[in-house]
Amino acid sequence: MSRRRDLSALFQPGSIALVGVPRGFEPGRVFLQGLLDQGYAGKIFPVNPRADFIDGLRAYPSLKEISGDIDLAILLVPAPLVLAALEQCGEKKVKAAVIYTSGFAETGDGEGKRREEEILRAARARGISLIGPNCMGIYDPSHRLAFFPGLPREAGKVGMISQSGSLAILFSRMAETRGIHFSKIISSGNESDLNSSDFLTFLGEDPQTEIIGAYLEGVKDGPAFLGALREVARKKPIILWKAGRTPGGGRAAFSHTGSLAGSRMAWEALKQQARVLMARDAEEFLDFLTVFHYLPRRRGKRMAILSGPGGPAVAAADACEEFGLEVAELEEETRKELKKIIPQTGTSVRNPVDLGLASVFQVDLYGRSAEIVGRDPGVDTLVLQGRGATAELDYRYANGVIEAHRKIGKPFIAISLGGMYLEDKSKKALLEAGIPIFPSAERALWAYSHLTRYGEK
Amino acid sequence: MSRRRDLSALFQPGSIALVGVPRGFEPGRVFLQGLLDQGYAGKIFPVNPRADFIDGLRAYPSLKEISGDIDLAILLVPAPLVLAALEQCGEKKVKAAVIYTSGFAETGDGEGKRREEEILRAARARGISLIGPNCMGIYDPSHRLAFFPGLPREAGKVGMISQSGSLAILFSRMAETRGIHFSKIISSGNESDLNSSDFLTFLGEDPQTEIIGAYLEGVKDGPAFLGALREVARKKPIILWKAGRTPGGGRAAFSHTGSLAGSRMAWEALKQQARVLMARDAEEFLDFLTVFHYLPRRRGKRMAILSGPGGPAVAAADACEEFGLEVAELEEETRKELKKIIPQTGTSVRNPVDLGLASVFQVDLYGRSAEIVGRDPGVDTLVLQGRGATAELDYRYANGVIEAHRKIGKPFIAISLGGMYLEDKSKKALLEAGIPIFPSAERALWAYSHLTRYGEK
Repeated sequence: MSRRRDLSALFQPGSIALVGVPRGFEPGRVFLQGLLDQGYAGKIFPVNPRADFIDGLRAYPSLKEISGDIDLAILLVPAPLVLAALEQCGEKKVKAAVIYTSGFAETGDGEGKRREEEILRAARARGISLIGPNCMGIYDPSHRLAFFPGLPREAGKVGMISQSGSLAILFSRMAETRGIHFSKIISSGNESDLNSSDFLTFLGEDPQTEIIGAYLEGVKDGPAFLGALREVARKKPIILWKAGRTPGGGRAAFSHTGSLAGSRMAWEALKQQARVLMARDAEEFLDFLTVFHYLPRRRGKRMAILSGPGGPAVAAADACEEFGLEVAELEEETRKELKKIIPQTGTSVRNPVDLGLASVFQVDLYGRSAEIVGRDPGVDTLVLQGRGATAELDYRYANGVIEAHRKIGKPFIAISLGGMYLEDKSKKALLEAGIPIFPSAERALWAYSHLTRYGEK
Repeated sequence: MSRRRDLSALFQPGSIALVGVPRGFEPGRVFLQGLLDQGYAGKIFPVNPRADFIDGLRAYPSLKEISGDIDLAILLVPAPLVLAALEQCGEKKVKAAVIYTSGFAETGDGEGKRREEEILRAARARGISLIGPNCMGIYDPSHRLAFFPGLPREAGKVGMISQSGSLAILFSRMAETRGIHFSKIISSGNESDLNSSDFLTFLGEDPQTEIIGAYLEGVKDGPAFLGALREVARKKPIILWKAGRTPGGGRAAFSHTGSLAGSRMAWEALKQQARVLMARDAEEFLDFLTVFHYLPRRRGKRMAILSGPGGPAVAAADACEEFGLEVAELEEETRKELKKIIPQTGTSVRNPVDLGLASVFQVDLYGRSAEIVGRDPGVDTLVLQGRGATAELDYRYANGVIEAHRKIGKPFIAISLGGMYLEDKSKKALLEAGIPIFPSAERALWAYSHLTRYGEK
């Protein structure tokens, strides 16, 4: 069992001080821009002794000069000044601090390590919870918190921990193209105080969070993390991208966040843990998130493929069988019904159902075929690779598919080949109707096969 | 040795008849639109007994009515009318025909098979070379031939064979986003007469073609194909995506193009053939094309990674070692030079060189670091994951990298994370400077590792 800490000051702060926020166009500025951009409703106190106003907000020379309470401090000052800033936080009774500043344990030298120990001691002595150092902190769109401008304002059901700040930013944007949004993203950096185990436990209990994702380079207390993981995995699916798997990656992880990549953690053994999915890279991570986000956990393996292009249909059939799924055998009746509506030549009424080139003009064929195939009791899930020849036809294609999906009630997966099939408007409509979109049938089926295995346990 | 056939009428026709081109917005129309869109300079004769003009061109009721010579006929008439069209082609001394029409051997019934044998006999008796049936035929931008509107007009050095017409279209567009263009794409369909072995031999001898790609579902004469493959692979790299690998995929391949997917061909054994790369899907196919298109064939495995975001740098280091490449050890001198220019904290001068978050503002760091790292004799190739915080900075980033690339003369690979890093203008500049762009370091390094293995043989 991992210890539980009160993290409300971090996720629901009524006021935030940005200590050392720069006047100019410099890195630390993004924290202020992020809060303004999200429309953070609490008080923001920029702290900078060399400015009176920053972005229209009154700036304070130090924390002491601020008259109101401060729930959360985000420290952007250089490393040698962090300790003093924490001492000021203590005087102002600040409950939590995010330390963006780097130059601590990740430097690999004695000074950095000592400095990190020092700030941790200072924070603990004052009852301040720390995130970082060397991190971006909290993105929580439902509380309008963000560490960077331009992050999606819509909140969703995925909670994420990232030991990389850049990936935290990138994932929020990449996921949005799949119609996926986050309850929280926590960029945790060096994890001197609050660490991945704490956040995992927190997300496990967070009612907004239904799926958990994590990009990790290492954990400091392997057994504690494993304990948290086991506990949380019982309730929610966890998708884990572990970097620093090789000696070269491990060295890089240490320079990046001071993580001891292999430390006492049997990462490899986690692959056997059915309720934790190990992703190998960003694309697979996103693909796994997508199936869990859109599709039911318990679903069979009998896939129907409905395709306009013939080549990708053949490849999709290969992928089914190579990934442990099945190319569903369609009933006689289903094939008869299909024969009535689709052109006689250049097509196939066997699964994969090939609607032929003409389907890009006669887009209604998709919805109608999807309905026929979807009714077949031998089919669990439909994969659709189609489109219209023009933007208008494409949108009609999407709406036909959406209507069939609503009528049939089985999972549908849409493919935008190479990301180039389907117009933006059509993509949006499909995603909003609960139909996920993948750049290839192979990637969709690979992720789906992991979903079915998860469902079996 | 495979037989050699004169294919000049197919690739350099002075005149083309489109037999059965529809008046309306129907599939066959794309062939006419494709030629007009490319600005085909020869004569185009639409043949349609129910139209006087199509797209401003005079239409003819039949081939007989055309007074000039016809080099190539593209047959778009329904399957039962193909034989008669071929007979007319014979009377007009047409040298080659592309048969778009489907409804032949791929139907799997006796009638389709008989019909395909019939047209083959008719063509051979009249000395007509056939592509298809059930295909799109030829895309050859340097002769302004296309089977679909909107295909790139720029010619390149990749020659491609595709048994899927849809993929032929899709690849031309997907490849363009990587700055890759084609000498020819041949969509070969059922391959009743001219087949993949013929086209492979042709592309092997084509001076415009330096790299060969093929999407295949099956070949009819395994030993002939293997012979052609061995011969051509000696001269040019071949990247092969074989679909129909599984029983389900094989059945789909048969319905699609009548291919016998497994027929007497030891596809698996080809993986041992060092000079033929087997791709598993469209993304890998494109990634392999990209490394061969941009990078020298003989290049070492010592990779330097230059990154702004830290997480993806760690992941890139993992990928290097997992794929049999090396994370280059930088010389003391190189690290000293780097230390002089990059910020002290939140960065690393060891490989992966982590330039930290500030690099998106101080974009010149990239070019300058790339030059320092590129000069290190222990580095063979550089992978760069960077960008600028604004479109303008992004373009400055790209230009700094391009200048370093020019000075150093070693291969550079740029990463646009999730396809979302880097502005379009910057991407274009990088590609034009000979720097390929991949959506992740993992995919780049995977493809690069195959390139180095190719170079070793």
